[in-house]
This record gives sequence, structure tokens and C-alpha cells, in this order.
Amino acid sequence: MKGSGSSRAEGSQTIYGLHAVRAMLQKHPERVSTVRVAERRDDPRVREIDELARRRQIPLQRVDAKVLRQKLGDVAHQGVAAEISPLPPWSEDDLLTAVQAAAQVAVQPLILALDGVQDPHNLGACLRTADACGALAVVVPRDRAAHVTPVVRKVAAGAAETTPVVTVTNLVRALKLLKEAGLWVIGADADATKRAHEADFRGGVVLVLGSEGGGLRQLTRQTCDWVVGLPQLGAVESLNVSVAAGMLLYEVLRQRAR
Amino acid sequence: MKGSGSSRAEGSQTIYGLHAVRAMLQKHPERVSTVRVAERRDDPRVREIDELARRRQIPLQRVDAKVLRQKLGDVAHQGVAAEISPLPPWSEDDLLTAVQAAAQVAVQPLILALDGVQDPHNLGACLRTADACGALAVVVPRDRAAHVTPVVRKVAAGAAETTPVVTVTNLVRALKLLKEAGLWVIGADADATKRAHEADFRGGVVLVLGSEGGGLRQLTRQTCDWVVGLPQLGAVESLNVSVAAGMLLYEVLRQRAR
Repeated sequence: MKGSGSSRAEGSQTIYGLHAVRAMLQKHPERVSTVRVAERRDDPRVREIDELARRRQIPLQRVDAKVLRQKLGDVAHQGVAAEISPLPPWSEDDLLTAVQAAAQVAVQPLILALDGVQDPHNLGACLRTADACGALAVVVPRDRAAHVTPVVRKVAAGAAETTPVVTVTNLVRALKLLKEAGLWVIGADADATKRAHEADFRGGVVLVLGSEGGGLRQLTRQTCDWVVGLPQLGAVESLNVSVAAGMLLYEVLRQRAR
Repeated sequence: MKGSGSSRAEGSQTIYGLHAVRAMLQKHPERVSTVRVAERRDDPRVREIDELARRRQIPLQRVDAKVLRQKLGDVAHQGVAAEISPLPPWSEDDLLTAVQAAAQVAVQPLILALDGVQDPHNLGACLRTADACGALAVVVPRDRAAHVTPVVRKVAAGAAETTPVVTVTNLVRALKLLKEAGLWVIGADADATKRAHEADFRGGVVLVLGSEGGGLRQLTRQTCDWVVGLPQLGAVESLNVSVAAGMLLYEVLRQRAR
């Protein structure tokens, strides 16, 4: 974790690190109640945070670095923390509304769906990766899957405070609704013959990754518009799910950057 | 972990899973002393393993599935395990010899170098990813860096038994030797202006990733032929190092597949 993350207080979340605090002030200033900056910090990046808080009339406190350490523990807070209201959970309807809103401003949505990832470390790592790649949300099924817990938040290093997790009762149904909304549903599977770079990711897409043990479930696979393979040259049968997600998300951004 | 991995016995390693055992029999049969298959397993993939062992005159034992469970614990062994001699550590000279050998058979070497990755989970995850992408070896500095331990082996899910880790006294010197051997040295850094897909990875390459906290060290960065950036759109400052490695390794394979 490089200077970003979150820790929990009653009702609110504490985020820390220059990048995480700046991103929150820029994207969701309405969620920030207080910014805390270590007394001796004074450099362009801290001044930018000061300016962002001032513009939004958000209280900024100068505190002893010890106070930050007491509050956050031994993390790389870079002298900056903020109290924020928690990210409200998104329903399936919220997700579909966000997809429509993206379409209205000509942004191609990018969504990550996890078909039964049960390890909280893997969910946290996927959230962190989805956040770095600008994903709109991460979709997980309600049953037999990891959900957002303190462990997930810690591994996600702040991403759980900005990238919504949408818990759905029926993943296949949710994927079908997203298809109806105009998105392509593209799954990853070890047995696929088409490779990721042969698929077209320039439209709105949902990337679907399977569980650690079993890959995509049959019905999920059948719901995908395409299924693509990822590198599998070595002794280990499958990639870690967050690494596989990273490769696919990277490929989407690469195609869109052309 | 999907049906592959390793556990330790005195002097030898036990690997398990259809994919891991088959890969070892194909690539390094001289390292396999015994193959064990659960009594009731009889399908094309098991028969292939049986045939590979027979051809190499490697003893194959049919055992009760309980024996495998006792030996391996609660892992997805898929009814197959093998005793193998440990992967001997590679010296810098071994690495350079392997690079020359690759050149002689017109294979472009792909090497991953980690500039001070200290978390054993991250080293294990990088090894697993490097293995899946066909990397020749993973290079790590002797000081202030994680080395191969039981935790690393477990996270690597079998990759530590096939992808050599080369510990070098001076990483910058090792990178310079690899440059002299004809490889391009390409680092990843959050501040780079060039994006990964703008670099040319079709020749032999060393990919260099920095530590969790500090990125590439100054001298390492100066030794790189190019430094490329990776997605950084969200609230979290940097990608996990194994995810970043996965994206770069994916990009190399994508370019080479064209």
C-alpha cells in the first residue's frame, strides 16, 4: 500500500494518503466532513489539498503527526487524512441508473463482475485494481461470495470507499439487465480459444471472472457475449483472480486509449 | 489456487494438481522421483500423466485418496501428486547462460525483476504470475527484499518449483549485464508519461517493478531503457505489485502474439 487506505470510525470512514484524500475532495467533496494535515507538512501536494478543502468550505485541521499515528496506526498516511461519510451500498437499480448516466455523457461504462469469489483478500485486491482502472462498480452475487468486510477494506487500500460494490441476488439476471442496457458481457476462462486482445472492449463492457476454484459457472458462461482466455504458459493452472482482472482491465484501457 | 501447488518434504518438494504434475513431467522429468495418483481416478488427463511417467520410467503409485489428503492437507490435489527434487537456486551466471541459450533457439527471454519487494505474499503472487506468463526467471536483490520461504511457495501455488528466483548482490549491476546480453530493461513507474502499450516489448525484455512503498529506486530507474506507466485512475495511489507485473507481462505476450 503506497500512502492510501482507510480505517473505520463510528458511522464514518477515515481515509488517508495524499492521493486518496485529493481524489475524494475532487470527486465526492460532499462526503468529506473534515480534513486533517500534519502540522509540518507544507509542499505543493498538501497546498493543493488545502485549496480544495477551502473551496468546498470543508474544515481543515492542522494536527500533530502523533495524532494521525494514534488514529490510524502504523500506515503510510503521508501526513494527510480525512473523515468521510461511508459509500452508500448500490442496488441493482443504482447500477443501471449509473450506466444510463454514463451513456448520457458519452462515457463507456466498465464494470467488473465476480462470479463467486470467496476469499476476502481476493475481493479487496479486485476492488483496488478496479478502482485504479476506473471501473464504475464491482458486482458480486449475494450467496457463496465474499462481501465488503474490514479485511476487504484494508486490502482494497481505500478503493472500497470510492468504488461501489453491488450485491445482486441473481448474477445471471443482473448480467442480462446490463446487456439490455447496451453493455457487452465478456467472461474470462482458462479454456477459451479467443484471446483477450482479440475481443473488442471499446464499447461499454462488463468483465466477468470466476471463482478461485471453479472458474465461471455454466449459466454465467452461457450469458457472456464472448469468453476470452488469459496467459497460462506455466506450471500453475490459473492466475490469481485479481491479477486476471488486472490484465483484462488493462486490455480495456489499452484498446480505449488508441 | 486451482488445483496446483506444492508442499515441502525433507530434501524434496511435493507438487500436486493435474496441471502442475503434467507440466513438470513434460518440462523437467529428470526432477520427478515418484508420481502418486488416487486409485479411482481414470480419465484422459490422468492417463496422459500415466503415459508421461511410463515413457520416462518414473515410478507411478496408485494410492488411496486419503493418503494424498494426509500428505498434502486440505488442498485441491485433483487426485495427483509428485515428489520432485527442489529447483536449484540460480546464480547470476546461470541466468546469463539461460539468456544466451534462449537466444540460440530464437526465444526472446522475458525476465521479471523486483526492486525491493519486501512482502512475501507479493513475491509469491509475482512468481505465480511470472510463471503463468512464461517468464524465464524472477530477479531479486539480496538485501531489503523478500526471498523464497514456505509462505512464498504457498502463495506461488507451485510456481516456485518451476520459475527460478535469482538473488543478486547488486540489482543495477545485474540489469546492466542483462542489457549487455541484448535485453531491453523496462521499468514501471506511476510518474511515467509513456504508457506500457507505447513501448516495444517484442525483443528480449527485463520488466522492473518497484517496492510496495517507494517505487523504483533512483539508480534502478536510471538503468532502465524506458520507464512506462500503468493505469492510475482511481483513489488508490498504486496497483499491487503482482497486478502491475501481470499487466506488463500481459502486454509483452500481447505484443509478441501479433
